[in-house]
Amino acid sequence: MAKDFPTRAENYSQWYNDLVIKADLAENSAVRGCMVIKPYGYAIWEKIQLNLDKMFKDTGHSNAYFPLFIPKSFFSREASHVEGFAKECAVVTHYRLKNSPDGKGVVVDDDAKLEEELIVRPTSETIIWDTYKNWIKSYRDLPILINQWANVVRWEMRTRLFLRTSEFLWQEGHTAHATREEAIREAETMLNVYTTFAQDWMALPVIQGVKSPAERFGGAVETYAIEAMMQDGKALQAGTSHFLGQNFAKAFDVKFLNKENQLDYVWATSWGVSTRLMGALIMSHSDDNGLVLPPKLAPIQVAIVPVFKTPDQLSFISETAIAIKKELEAKGIRVKFDDRDTRTPGWKFSEYEFKGVPVRLTIGPRDIEKGTIEVSRRDTLEKEHYPMTGVCDRIADLLGQIQNNLFQKALDYREARTYRVDDYEEFKQILDKGGFIYAHWDGTKETEARIKEETKATIRVIPLNNPQEPGKCIYSGKPSKERVIFARAY
Amino acid sequence: MAKDFPTRAENYSQWYNDLVIKADLAENSAVRGCMVIKPYGYAIWEKIQLNLDKMFKDTGHSNAYFPLFIPKSFFSREASHVEGFAKECAVVTHYRLKNSPDGKGVVVDDDAKLEEELIVRPTSETIIWDTYKNWIKSYRDLPILINQWANVVRWEMRTRLFLRTSEFLWQEGHTAHATREEAIREAETMLNVYTTFAQDWMALPVIQGVKSPAERFGGAVETYAIEAMMQDGKALQAGTSHFLGQNFAKAFDVKFLNKENQLDYVWATSWGVSTRLMGALIMSHSDDNGLVLPPKLAPIQVAIVPVFKTPDQLSFISETAIAIKKELEAKGIRVKFDDRDTRTPGWKFSEYEFKGVPVRLTIGPRDIEKGTIEVSRRDTLEKEHYPMTGVCDRIADLLGQIQNNLFQKALDYREARTYRVDDYEEFKQILDKGGFIYAHWDGTKETEARIKEETKATIRVIPLNNPQEPGKCIYSGKPSKERVIFARAY
Repeated sequence: MAKDFPTRAENYSQWYNDLVIKADLAENSAVRGCMVIKPYGYAIWEKIQLNLDKMFKDTGHSNAYFPLFIPKSFFSREASHVEGFAKECAVVTHYRLKNSPDGKGVVVDDDAKLEEELIVRPTSETIIWDTYKNWIKSYRDLPILINQWANVVRWEMRTRLFLRTSEFLWQEGHTAHATREEAIREAETMLNVYTTFAQDWMALPVIQGVKSPAERFGGAVETYAIEAMMQDGKALQAGTSHFLGQNFAKAFDVKFLNKENQLDYVWATSWGVSTRLMGALIMSHSDDNGLVLPPKLAPIQVAIVPVFKTPDQLSFISETAIAIKKELEAKGIRVKFDDRDTRTPGWKFSEYEFKGVPVRLTIGPRDIEKGTIEVSRRDTLEKEHYPMTGVCDRIADLLGQIQNNLFQKALDYREARTYRVDDYEEFKQILDKGGFIYAHWDGTKETEARIKEETKATIRVIPLNNPQEPGKCIYSGKPSKERVIFARAY
Repeated sequence: MAKDFPTRAENYSQWYNDLVIKADLAENSAVRGCMVIKPYGYAIWEKIQLNLDKMFKDTGHSNAYFPLFIPKSFFSREASHVEGFAKECAVVTHYRLKNSPDGKGVVVDDDAKLEEELIVRPTSETIIWDTYKNWIKSYRDLPILINQWANVVRWEMRTRLFLRTSEFLWQEGHTAHATREEAIREAETMLNVYTTFAQDWMALPVIQGVKSPAERFGGAVETYAIEAMMQDGKALQAGTSHFLGQNFAKAFDVKFLNKENQLDYVWATSWGVSTRLMGALIMSHSDDNGLVLPPKLAPIQVAIVPVFKTPDQLSFISETAIAIKKELEAKGIRVKFDDRDTRTPGWKFSEYEFKGVPVRLTIGPRDIEKGTIEVSRRDTLEKEHYPMTGVCDRIADLLGQIQNNLFQKALDYREARTYRVDDYEEFKQILDKGGFIYAHWDGTKETEARIKEETKATIRVIPLNNPQEPGKCIYSGKPSKERVIFARAY
């Protein structure tokens, strides 16, 4: 497996790009800004989907599907939605091709021009609220708790695999409620679902908070978010949950008869995570030897590599290997026994290390004679010989330990790069090294914009349950009542 | 639950449309030809996906994801592909909106015109083979066995929910092989997977065969298909699997070094089923009382309706109901206990009947005293009292019986409407009543086209392992060596 790519210290950005491609996770396609997600990368995304989907259903949500296309006029209905959203969208203007007059290929048929252009959805609030209008008459029709797994398109000029692509995959929840309180509770519930998923499954420590007004989603009254730190000290927004108030209900005229028999506008939330999580997963745990995957999301959790010289040796080893595989699989562990004779054991060791397989078992004839097995863990690169007796229980435990270790390592990393700063010069120095900065802010969007312009740092979140602490804005010196988190971000 | 919709006999087409909408499966959206799949409909689609996906993985396939957009020029690379495909496609020409000069809404930004238009994928052979080109160098890179779950768009002028929509959901398998034989075997394997799924899960009897050259997929050497009969005697193509020969490899210049160290073009297949299966499922089993779902795909398999007058009675009944629910769930059965006090038992009976829930249990205080429970099956509308002892085992059995009964009923229906015809007048009469006709055909596309023009019937398939039987073409009187299946189709 090719080690011909830079270390994180040499070039973090190049390290990431090379890793994604060389580990067979994704690649750029023939269409600018659109990626191909390769089977190994997609297998990880499937695990993310499967587990999130279960968590959505356990909190009462159902899946549904809404159209890919949205009439152009829908976007201008909710004023801050269209403003907040970049207008970089894929626009469908025609619905037919025809043979080229010169006989070479096909051209767009000018006679097949749409009366109103269609936009490939960048997000679905507008088309969904236009639909909900017909579903909601009374409080008895509420709440509506729907999620959609879909592809969306936001035309991007500078793209990076998983982190920023013109087309990406995501889920978007869209809920409708009878009361303000219930909608806020829903937005918070989903923030907690995302937090649990990030921490327990991705081994990714996150900070919960709300966005500053300038960083809110277009059309939202409050945007909740979880923020994670990558290994270069930059922030990555790993999920958002929006309390939309009655903004979309008003824009699409969605009213209901409440229990008091009075007409009122419906309250809304929306929330989403995307294939960007793949970027977060890769960037937070991987190292200079390649990918490191948390066991809970690894397509292969345990790889078994036999070391043999003759077919007889292989068949002797296989007996043990297959027995272990079966026992591990019975515990719900995903195992690959790589008995190919077209690759050397050394090649396989590199391969599974590079692909981030959490545990590798090596079995040679002498191991079997001695009744031991070599167990290598990917996170620490440590090797140990386990006695054969009870080996499967120990491996199951080990997978749990690796999962916890990755979380703790990422948490320690973040804590070590988190600062409380009161001086603007120090603030700028730290940003150049990378890290999260708790600093005072005067609460104005002018100051926020200036800081962003001068330092490229943004307010990532105002943490939930933030301790109130009077102070002076790091930029303007004006009074502040709490610290907020600043960082440069993906 | 509204019964205000026509019977199948009165107006089959209207019966279907009304059923889809009133049973909350899907509805038309604000975008012409695009549907909204509602939660109840989507829950059925999820079960279809889940089970097919497992079958694909069990036969060695992995999922991946390729771009939504395809450069226009790709379509003209494979000549019969672009010809065979309707040119009704959604064409993306611009990538940005801007504020309208009059301040009202947004307009397309003329400065953001794409150099080459992008087509929203109607199918992905072209973009995938352009990608495979970089993945395949030697026979060691083969086979590639990939599937994609995706949305596709084929602009349709006349649309019907699930059966024909401009956007639909599907899966498309795209495989690459070193030999012709292996590729053909793959196409046949997937036809068998579709057949097993249709028959064992959807309770839908299907006929396997190959398409006539005129009905082949654009770019295919052979198109395998499964055909099912709906309750109006019309055919519905429920899945196709294509042997593509080396056509796409040649169009995209995908060569590999074979074991003899010689360069050769790669062999290909593609295969797919879509949300159209939902239409087949609904049309083949449902009746004038509403939806009928095969237990294996029903989101709710057993609904428990308590009959009570007082809260005390409800809590008394609930004890038994919840115990039964838990026991059924432990057997993997999907149960809903509907203890709402806002709806009458009668309303609930109609609701679950209309929504096609296979088994309904009714429990009143007197049932509990007598130690029995009323069990109603949706397929036959029969009711029976089961003794409480062992009731869960009997219900599990009953679900299996219902699944088998639906299949047998559909098979009997098809057999009763299948004819061997040698006279063209009789042929036309039978088509007007509906049914499958085994008739002789001279093998020419001219005859096929004439018959289609005169009768709207097409050759659905030439059955696999078709008995060879000399005869005379029903239209031209020319010699024929076997009968093929004609029918009008969806």
